[in-house]
Parts: sequence; structure tokens; C-alpha cells
Amino acid sequence: MFIKNTWYVAAWDQEVSADGLFSRTIIGVPVLMYRDSGGRLVALEDRCCHRGAPLSVGRREGDCVRCMYHGLKFDPGGACVEAPAQARIPPQARVRTFPVVERHRWIWIWMGDPERADPALIPDTQWLDHPDWRSQDGYIHYDVNYLLIADNLLDFSHLPFVHPTTLGGSEDYATVSPKVDRLPDGVRITRWTLNTEAPAFAQKVREWPGLVDRWNIYNFTLPGILLMDSGMAPAGNGAQEGNREGAIEFRGCQALTPETATSTHYFFAHPHNFSIDRPEVTASIHQSVVEAFDEDRDIITAQQRSLSLAPDFKMVPLSIDAALSQFRWVVARRVEEEQQQAASAATGARPAQAA
Amino acid sequence: MFIKNTWYVAAWDQEVSADGLFSRTIIGVPVLMYRDSGGRLVALEDRCCHRGAPLSVGRREGDCVRCMYHGLKFDPGGACVEAPAQARIPPQARVRTFPVVERHRWIWIWMGDPERADPALIPDTQWLDHPDWRSQDGYIHYDVNYLLIADNLLDFSHLPFVHPTTLGGSEDYATVSPKVDRLPDGVRITRWTLNTEAPAFAQKVREWPGLVDRWNIYNFTLPGILLMDSGMAPAGNGAQEGNREGAIEFRGCQALTPETATSTHYFFAHPHNFSIDRPEVTASIHQSVVEAFDEDRDIITAQQRSLSLAPDFKMVPLSIDAALSQFRWVVARRVEEEQQQAASAATGARPAQAA
Amino acid sequence: MFIKNTWYVAAWDQEVSADGLFSRTIIGVPVLMYRDSGGRLVALEDRCCHRGAPLSVGRREGDCVRCMYHGLKFDPGGACVEAPAQARIPPQARVRTFPVVERHRWIWIWMGDPERADPALIPDTQWLDHPDWRSQDGYIHYDVNYLLIADNLLDFSHLPFVHPTTLGGSEDYATVSPKVDRLPDGVRITRWTLNTEAPAFAQKVREWPGLVDRWNIYNFTLPGILLMDSGMAPAGNGAQEGNREGAIEFRGCQALTPETATSTHYFFAHPHNFSIDRPEVTASIHQSVVEAFDEDRDIITAQQRSLSLAPDFKMVPLSIDAALSQFRWVVARRVEEEQQQAASAATGARPAQAA
Repeated sequence: MFIKNTWYVAAWDQEVSADGLFSRTIIGVPVLMYRDSGGRLVALEDRCCHRGAPLSVGRREGDCVRCMYHGLKFDPGGACVEAPAQARIPPQARVRTFPVVERHRWIWIWMGDPERADPALIPDTQWLDHPDWRSQDGYIHYDVNYLLIADNLLDFSHLPFVHPTTLGGSEDYATVSPKVDRLPDGVRITRWTLNTEAPAFAQKVREWPGLVDRWNIYNFTLPGILLMDSGMAPAGNGAQEGNREGAIEFRGCQALTPETATSTHYFFAHPHNFSIDRPEVTASIHQSVVEAFDEDRDIITAQQRSLSLAPDFKMVPLSIDAALSQFRWVVARRVEEEQQQAASAATGARPAQAA
Repeated sequence: MFIKNTWYVAAWDQEVSADGLFSRTIIGVPVLMYRDSGGRLVALEDRCCHRGAPLSVGRREGDCVRCMYHGLKFDPGGACVEAPAQARIPPQARVRTFPVVERHRWIWIWMGDPERADPALIPDTQWLDHPDWRSQDGYIHYDVNYLLIADNLLDFSHLPFVHPTTLGGSEDYATVSPKVDRLPDGVRITRWTLNTEAPAFAQKVREWPGLVDRWNIYNFTLPGILLMDSGMAPAGNGAQEGNREGAIEFRGCQALTPETATSTHYFFAHPHNFSIDRPEVTASIHQSVVEAFDEDRDIITAQQRSLSLAPDFKMVPLSIDAALSQFRWVVARRVEEEQQQAASAATGARPAQAA
Repeated sequence: MFIKNTWYVAAWDQEVSADGLFSRTIIGVPVLMYRDSGGRLVALEDRCCHRGAPLSVGRREGDCVRCMYHGLKFDPGGACVEAPAQARIPPQARVRTFPVVERHRWIWIWMGDPERADPALIPDTQWLDHPDWRSQDGYIHYDVNYLLIADNLLDFSHLPFVHPTTLGGSEDYATVSPKVDRLPDGVRITRWTLNTEAPAFAQKVREWPGLVDRWNIYNFTLPGILLMDSGMAPAGNGAQEGNREGAIEFRGCQALTPETATSTHYFFAHPHNFSIDRPEVTASIHQSVVEAFDEDRDIITAQQRSLSLAPDFKMVPLSIDAALSQFRWVVARRVEEEQQQAASAATGARPAQAA
């Protein structure tokens, strides 16, 4: 059961080319995305209303798409505008459309009630295309439920254990408890580790003669969006008090989008604002992150296999689980709310009996 | 749930060699086929009655077959005639046999009540071995339920979309509505497309200086047998009125046999009665059909994947679905009849209470 | 449903190295095995109590193991002794331990109530490391339920049919009925075949000028342990009366350990006490057994596929099934007993109502 009334990241903008047909399954629904002749995004259910064939193996015709099974043609609004040997097209011959918004390199999609799709709710990821920041586009696919990945991102104490040679650094990093603040739709995590070693990925792009003060400050909000201010500065420079002189800074943008109940799309980038004229620095940072996220995927996939053998397994909660417990509670509450709204809507047409 | 009291195509005759053991699963039942010393077909359940091992990995011994797990030997009538260390063989030690009939290159099998297996019910496929006609043997395997393939064969409006460079031809082909007549066990479809382009497969075997009149006239009957008179003649020659001068003609024979609920055997040939002394023509026609059927399999398999994601999907029926809707109704009615008969038979032994 | 209060073979001793982490799933439970600094075996549930990650992809630290997801450290007793950023470790932060005993090259594990894990119940497999006997270590993995393999081992009439060129010999072997005696936890099978051909595997390691008297005498006991005295001697030498002059003898040790309901570990060795200074003889015998067990796996896997197509299949019992029927009864009774004990234990705390 997925949250529907929320913005999911559906794709990097360049994945949907000017004349192609791009298909991706989002919360169990196959979605066809393409651009009309003006470059505007169209998102249709990727399933012909006639016999269920995917439209994405169909053919672009102007701003329309034709199903290449029996030849039905759909306009960008989802209406069937042509059907072979059919004089009158029945009005129910249409496919669902989805609100989509392209913003700062990401394509956001709303899978719920289109009336509620307010673009103002889209999180700000300005660093993905800001001239002062540089990053490369990241995407990996997981064969696990998205909440296991959210758990991972909500507890960075795993860094020195899962990522000792990439993002991790020394194990003292894990001994610090982060500050966790509840947000309306998620949590805010503030983690400062003082006098610690610079992690390997940072040592590859800068010399660090001594220890550093390191921070990871991020919001993790519905449906699974991580926006992070992170970095490190020479220890004792006063970074925690606001002095970022000599620091390197990042604005990590990450998004989990469930594909199905057992698979997940993971979009990410790790913008930096130093050495932005040196592509090899951007490439090095990106490569470190990709390696680290492969490490995450290995352990999380192993965890998923282990859990699938033991459906009754009860996890023992620890203090490091504070943030993930809160986020799971936020998810559960939102799912429950949507179910209650759906139930109310289903009975809403009945006359009130006792009124 | 499959129809049982019907003739299914089980194999091409040459698939069951003189001394081999051939196994194929038909409507969920593994069947062993072989030939006795007189060349007569034997069809046994391919599952030893003792511990369930497949007999097809066993050994021919004269007209019998021996299970190579514990050595039980079965005669062509399915009776166990030898069991190691067993003086008296219990009468229930036998495997099921199935009526089989070899006719015009196809082996037909009856999976239901043997008493009702009337060979007169077998459809006439004389063109498969008629001296005036030529074809090659075709078989492909599908990982979808057979009804999705039947749907495809019952609506040729897909030809120009799925098969533009093989069987299809120009898209006007799809704008013509065929005549659909109900048969006792299926439908008869008559489709004439006048003044249309000769499709690619026909252009490969004959020069067509102008447009053609093209016809596809076929019965599609239980359990999934397509027998077709098709062809084309120079436009305006009067083919529709019966003049087949200058025409090329085919007698397509196709059979769908469910393997399991999610997989299907597909037997086919496309006999032609022109250029029968030119094997390259026969090969060219066969190759075009094979390519086209691979195209069908691609779209139908994609359709099946799409439908499996959406168990509640409601198809929007169009006028082009008339034949497939009727055929699905015929199938459903026959399955229901067989279930009622089975229920009656199960209670038939009881004395009538109110008589 | 598996028997829990019994000793299962978990591994060959050398599979658990001095400093490695070895994981194997036993009756559905992933088990981590390793050796402490004194070489003593430790067996823990291979699933961190925190978030379920496998400990086997963790890190050895002295006699402890650290989970490399979030860094929890467990001692050989299963207690969590360290957790990052956690001042007080909750007492429920522990993983299950299992009694393990290393004896004669095999590691035995007790998956049930540790109180009842009496090492005296472990079957004697002294031939696996006895100076007068030689063998090689065997292991294969099956994708079938262990009872289908037990069936196979409880009825050697399959030998000439499944293993004609390895263990089998001539088919008269199967015409002899073995003597079957009930044991408290299994059966004892005594099979003598007189005046038969020496099987291929024996002909590879010795010249047999004439026929032989051949015996297979074995206990097959819970949970799935076969211990066998087998061999052959020149026919008429009086082997059946106790004269083993001129004989070759084996002490086969085999163990079935369910991995899951649909997969099984199979441990085996075939010790011999002749030509023990000729490693090529030991290798030849082992190779014959491995080939034969691959033959068994082929037919049993085919049987399993065949049975899975027919959930209602009723096997026709024959006299050769006496031993396997008895053993299946023993298994069923033991499973039922354990279920009753578990049910009693679950209600044991309630005050007796009618007392």
C-alpha cells in the first residue's frame, strides 16, 4: 500500500528525450512519459484501455501516441481519438493521465487525486542545476521494498560499517547520536562528528592534513526524499558555529520511488560547490557515491533475503532507530489517512441516514 | 480451467519418432507419446503411478515403456505388467491413457472422457499433406494463457500494426469490419479488403504491379483451431465474386493447445497452392509467418505482463472485439457445461430421493 | 514442518575454517558458524536482532562477530555486547545460539530445545576419520524436499535402473526383497543379492573374475541419517554367513539436512578399508558415488517437477515401499509429538480450570 497524494520523482529530465517513449512503473502503475512538440511532458498510464498492451511499444504520431497492437490513437489528454473500424469512439476509451512537473532536472509525478497536485509541494532541489554547484546524475534499481532503503538513509551510523572505504571514515562517527526533529511530513536529522577522520571520498578530492569536523544535516520527507547539507571542515575551525571557511560542502539530493512492493527506483546526486571547474572532482565524488550505494544495496538486499525467511521476525529497536521509527510512523499515518478518505469517498454519495 | 472433451493438437507427427519417447504437457497433464512396433501411437500419462517419476526419461522395451526409477514396466494400454520384487501387481498400478489420432500430419489428443472421443469431430486439415499444397511445419511456445493468443487470432485488425513488414500491409486493412458468424463451437470470420497493397510476405513471392483484393476467411473453433482460406488477387478481378484467376491462395492451419494456465503450444502451417515446385517460395512464406508470429508473441507477452500488474483492469470493448467476445463466451459456456456434467456424475450414484 | 529436537548434520568440519564466517540455512533458519580462538565451534542465528542483516557478512573481532550494517557486536553466547551510540544495551538484544558438536568430521547441530541436546544421541560415524578407512568428503545440494531423497535411499531397488553404469549392476539386484526391521527412530534394511554381477564402481577398483554376493545393510534413522555396511565378495564364499574373505567393504555415511521445505543439503562419504594406501582407489570410489548421486538428483528433481503439476496425485504403494512407508510414518509421528508438546507448553502456564 503506497501513499498516492504526493510527488514522486519519476525520472531525470534527460531520460525522457524529445521524440522517444519512456516507460517506468511507479507504485505499481506503468507510466508512459514523452514530450509533445513544444517539449512539454505528457504522462499516460502505459496500458492501452482496449486490451492492455503497453503504449510504450507504440508509435509517436505528432503529439499523440498510437498503440501498435490494434491501432488506437491517444492524445496527450489520454483520450482515444482514433480506433480502426470504429465510427464512434466510446467516451470511456481513454487512459489515465498524471500530473507531471519538471523542475531542477527531476521529473515529478503525482499518482493520486489530480485535483490535489499542487506544484508548490515539490521539494526544492535547486542544487541539481544551480550554476554554483556541480554533480552527475545517479540512478540505481533495488529489488527490495523502499522502506528498507529509507531505514538505511535515516540512520547514518551505518556509514563506517557499510562504507569504510568510501563515505564512511572512522568508527567514532557512529558513536555520536544525531539530533532528530519531527517535521510535518518527515524528520530532520542533525549529525555533527567533531575531530574525526575525513572519509575516503573526501580525501580523494582534497588534502586533509588533520582531523575534521563533519556534518550531515538533512530533511527526510514523504514519500522518500532526502535533501542534505553535508560537508567537513578542519577540526576546530568552528564549522558547527557557522564558520565554513576551509570547508567542502555538498547538497545531496536523493529520492526513493517505489516501483512495486518489492522493488524501488533510487535517484540521487551529490552536488558540490568547490572545484566546480574540475570535472574530475565531480566525477570522483560521483563515483564514490555510486560505489557506496552499491554497498548499501548489497547489505539491504541481504537483509531483505534474511527477513523474507522469517516473516515473524521482531526487530529489537535501539536508540539509533529514532529517526526511522518516526518516519515509518509518518508513512503509516499517511497511508491510513488516504485509506479513510477513500472509504469516505466511496460512501459519500449515499444520502445521510440520520441527518 | 480447461475444456477437456475436445481434440487438442498434441504434436506434429514427425515429433514422435519411430523409437523415441516424446513428452509434452497438455492442459496441465504431462503426456508421453511413442509409437509401437507397428507405428501406432501410444499416449500415456507421463507420470509413473508408483512414485510419480516421468516415464519419458524411461526406456522403451518392445511396445512397452519401463520407468527408470524403480523399474515398473507399462504396456501400451497403461497397465503395469512388471514390477521388481513384486509377485502380484495390484490392479490399480496403471497409468492413464489418452485417445490419440494421427491425421494430416497432426497428432490429436483427447484429454477428457475417452468414451466421447469421436474422431469424426477432428477438424479437416487436409492441406497439411495434400499433394497440391505445400507448407513447412511451424511451432512456437508462449508464456501466456492461450486465450490472449486466441484474442489475437480473432481480430486481424492488428495486422498492419503488429506486422507492418511481414503479414500486414497498409493500414486501410484495419478499417474494414469483418463479417462474424456464430458457429456451434466458435465463429466464422469473413474479411475482404479491396484495393489494398499486397503485404510484404506476398510481394516476396510474386510481383504485384497494382493493388490487390485481399481476403481472410476462417473458422476459429474450440479448443483453439484456426482454419483459413486466405489470399489475394489483382484488384477488380472479381475475387470476392468467386473469380480466383491470378490469385495466390493459402489454407492456414493453426492450433492453440494450452500447456498450463500460463503457457501455450502454438502449431501452425501456411499451405499455398502456387509455385509448389519451388521450395524457396514455401520457405519464404514460412519464414514470413514465423517472423510475424514472433511479433505477435512480443506484443502478447508484453500485454500479459501489463495485465498481470493490474488484476482489476477492465478492458474497454470495441466493435473489432465482436469475434473474440463471442469466442470467449463459447469457451466459458463449454467449461461451465463440463463442470455441471462433472458435478452431476459425482452425485449420479445416489438413489434419487424424491423419485 | 520439520523435526526440531534432533541432531542435524550442519557441515563438514573443514567447511568452518579457523577464522572464517560460514553460513548455512538449516530447516529454514540461517545459521552462522565460526570457531573461537580455541577452535571451538560457535553457532548463532545468522540474522542480527536489530534489523535482520546477516551476521555472516559481518566481521570477526576476537571471539565475537560484528554486524557490518550498524555495528552491533555479539559474543559467542549470542549476547549483544556493543552497539554504537547506545549506553545501555537492552537485554533482549541477542541472537539465538544452537548447540553444536564436532565429531568424526561432521558438525552436528540441534535446532530444537537446547536442554534436550544430548550429544549421546549423535549417530556413530567413526569411519569418517578412522585410520583403517579412507574416503573423500561429499556434498551436493538438492532443490527438492528432503523426504523425496529419503524415499530414494530407503529403496535400493532403484540401483540398476537409475545407476546402471555406476552403483547399479544387473537388474536381478532389484528382484530381491530386503528385510526391513523397525527401529525406534527409523528402519534397518538388510539386502543380500547372491550370484550377481559386480557393479561398475566395484569393477573399477578390483578384478572380479566371476559373480559376487553383494550386501547393503543399513540403518536409516531420524532426521535422515544413513549408516551402511555394504560390500561384495566372490559368490559362494559364504559372505552372508559371515566370511568376508576376499570381500571389499564400505561404511557409507550419508545425511540429509533440510535447508527449506523445497531444498536439501546432502552430506556423504563412502569409506573403504581396502587399498587404503592407494589414493586413486579412494578417488575412483568417490567419483562413482558422486556420479551416481547426480543421477539420483536428476530423477528425483524430475519426480518433484512431475508431482508439483499434480497436487492430488495418489501414489500406488508397492511392496518395495515398505521401508520408506515406515520411515515416513516415523517422521510424521515425531512431528506430531513435537507439535503437541509445543501446544502443551503454550498452555502450560494457565491454571487448570477443572482441577
